[in-house]
Amino acid sequence: MRRLPEPLVHTVPAFTFEDGAAFAGAPVAYRTWGRLNAAADNAVLVLHALTGDTHADVWWGGLVGPGRAIDTDRFFVVCPNVIGSPYGTLSPLTVNPATARPWGAAFPVPTIRDTVRLHRHVLDALGVRSVALATGGSMGGMQALEWAFEVGEDGAPYVRAVAPLAACGRHSAWCIGWSEAQRMAIRADARWNGGDYTEQPEAGLAAARAMAMVSYRTAEAFSIKHGRAAQAGSDAFAVESYLRYQGAKLVARFDANCYLRITEMMDTHDLARGRGDYEAVVASITQPLLAVGIDSDVLYLAAEARELAALAPRGTYRELASPWGHDAFLIEFDALGAILRDWMAEVEI
Amino acid sequence: MRRLPEPLVHTVPAFTFEDGAAFAGAPVAYRTWGRLNAAADNAVLVLHALTGDTHADVWWGGLVGPGRAIDTDRFFVVCPNVIGSPYGTLSPLTVNPATARPWGAAFPVPTIRDTVRLHRHVLDALGVRSVALATGGSMGGMQALEWAFEVGEDGAPYVRAVAPLAACGRHSAWCIGWSEAQRMAIRADARWNGGDYTEQPEAGLAAARAMAMVSYRTAEAFSIKHGRAAQAGSDAFAVESYLRYQGAKLVARFDANCYLRITEMMDTHDLARGRGDYEAVVASITQPLLAVGIDSDVLYLAAEARELAALAPRGTYRELASPWGHDAFLIEFDALGAILRDWMAEVEI
Repeated sequence: MRRLPEPLVHTVPAFTFEDGAAFAGAPVAYRTWGRLNAAADNAVLVLHALTGDTHADVWWGGLVGPGRAIDTDRFFVVCPNVIGSPYGTLSPLTVNPATARPWGAAFPVPTIRDTVRLHRHVLDALGVRSVALATGGSMGGMQALEWAFEVGEDGAPYVRAVAPLAACGRHSAWCIGWSEAQRMAIRADARWNGGDYTEQPEAGLAAARAMAMVSYRTAEAFSIKHGRAAQAGSDAFAVESYLRYQGAKLVARFDANCYLRITEMMDTHDLARGRGDYEAVVASITQPLLAVGIDSDVLYLAAEARELAALAPRGTYRELASPWGHDAFLIEFDALGAILRDWMAEVEI
Repeated sequence: MRRLPEPLVHTVPAFTFEDGAAFAGAPVAYRTWGRLNAAADNAVLVLHALTGDTHADVWWGGLVGPGRAIDTDRFFVVCPNVIGSPYGTLSPLTVNPATARPWGAAFPVPTIRDTVRLHRHVLDALGVRSVALATGGSMGGMQALEWAFEVGEDGAPYVRAVAPLAACGRHSAWCIGWSEAQRMAIRADARWNGGDYTEQPEAGLAAARAMAMVSYRTAEAFSIKHGRAAQAGSDAFAVESYLRYQGAKLVARFDANCYLRITEMMDTHDLARGRGDYEAVVASITQPLLAVGIDSDVLYLAAEARELAALAPRGTYRELASPWGHDAFLIEFDALGAILRDWMAEVEI
C-alpha cells in the first residue's frame, strides 16, 4: 500500500457548536491540490462521506486530478475532514483539556452546519474569497447543500455552485432508522461501557459496518458478487465472509464513538431546520445545483435527489444507472465524470 | 390482551436432521382450526415466518377464519411451529437429555426441509392423507415451496397446491447478508458468551430486531409513519424510539440462539440443493403455484416471486401494490384475501 501524505491541520482557537458546546481549540485536518488563483475564486470543495477522510485523490481518484472532471490543473481543490471523524478533525478522539483525556462519549453531537462553519475557517485562512463548487456524495452531498447557505464578504453566496450526489436535503426516517439499528449494535458490545471503553468495541462496530455495507449495495450487486457460493476453505457463505471482513477492516481504522457522533450528525441534517418551510428553503438556493440520484440506491433514494433539483430554481437532475446501489458514487467514475463535466460546462464552472 | 389457547404438542420419538444430528424426542407445537373431512384431504397448511408462532388466527386473522379466504368452515387448517422457534417445537430451548440442560448454542443448524419432514409426522398423526394447499409469507413461503416436493402414500404429491407470498426459491446473498449483519450484532452482545449465556443477550437481539424491522418496511412507510418528528417527551427521533421499542418487544418474547438458528435455517433454503439445476427443479413442481410478490419489498424482491411463477409449469404470479414493503403480507389482508380467493377458485381448491 502506498503511503499517503499526512493531511495539514488548521486549528481554530475557539469554536462553539450550535448546541452551545464550546471548544478552546478545534483542529481541522484537510488536504489541497492545485493552486489558488489570483482572484482567490477557483476553489472546489470535495466533501467526504461517513467513514471517508481527506484523501479525495484516493477515494475519488477517478474524479479528482489533472485533466479529471474536478481538474486540479484548473481548480484549487480542498478536502476537509468532518467533525467527529477519527482522521484529524475535532472528534471524540481529541483530548479534552479539562480532563487531559480524549472526549470519548462526552463529545457532544455536532451538526452538518457545525462542520461547514468550522471548515469555513480553513478556507478563510487559506485566503479563499469564493468557492466555484462544493460537491460530494452521501454525507458529502449534505455538506455541499449546507455550503449553499454560506455568505461571502460581499454578501453574495460564498459558494457559486453545489453538486450533491446520492444525498438528501433532510435525513429521512428511513436513514435515521438504518443508523439507529447500527448504533444499537455498537451499544450492545461487551466492551461498550456507555462509550467509556478502554478497548474498541470491535464486534459491535463490525456489526454496524456490516449493516451499513448492506445498505450501500443492492440485491443485484450481492448476487453478482457472491451469490450462494461458500467461502473457499470455510462453511460460511461468501457474503458472510465478505461482511465480516468489511467489519474487521473498519474496526482497524475507525472508532466507535466517532461512528456514533457522525451518524448522529447526519440525523440532524435538515436544510429547513430553523429556516422555515422545506420547499421554500430549497427554493431559496439561487446557485446552480446538480443533484445526482442513483437508480438502485436503497438508502438515499433517487427520488430525494430528484426533489432537490425540482425545488431549486437552477436545479438540474441527473440519474446514474448502476447495479451498485449507494456505493455507485465511489465506483462509477466514468459516468459521474461525464455528468459533472457536462453540467459544469453548462453552468460555466 | 386476550389469552391465546395453548398449542397442542406432538412428539416424534426419533428424528434426524439432514446433517445427521439425531434427537430422541422431537416435539412439534401446532394449532388447528376446522375439521378434517372424511376423505382426509381438506387440510390447509398455514406456515409462519421468522418470529411467528402457531397462532395463525392472530397474525393472519384477516385471511384465516370462517368465511375468510382460508375458510375454516371448509378447510382443516394446521399451523405447525418451525424447528428452532421458542414457541414449543424442538429448538435451542429444548432440554438435551444427555446434559439435562437446554441445547442452547449446541443446537445444530436445521434446514427448511428438516422442518417440513418433522411437520409431516404431525399431519400423518392427524390422519391427513393429502393437503389441499400449503401457504405462508416469507419463511412460511419457503416451507410451502419445500412442501411441493413431499410425496403421499399413493406416490402423488402430498400437497396439491402451494402459495408462497413474499418468498423465494433460494435464499439470496442479499438476504443472507441482512441476516449475518443481525447475527453479528447478537454475537457482539456483552452477555453472548459464545451462545452459552445465562441472561438473554438483550441489547444484541434488540439491535438485530431493529435492523430486521428496517428490512421489513420501506422508506415511504417510515416517512408516513415517523417522518423527522421527535418522540414526545424525548430528544430521540420517533423512528429511533419505534425501533428500540420493537427491539425490546422481541427480546421479551424470543431467544437469541433461536433467532440465530432460524435465520441460519433460512440461509440453507435452496430448492435446488441436491436436486439439480434450479430452473429445472422449479419446473418440476407440477402443482398449481401462486407466487405473490410485493412491489415495495426490499428484502424478498418481487422479481424472485415472479421468477418462481414463470418457471413453474402451473405458476401464477400476482403482485401486491403496497407502501408497506415486506410486512405487507401481514397487513394487506383485503388485497391478499382477494388474490388468494380468485386463484383458489381458478385452480379449484
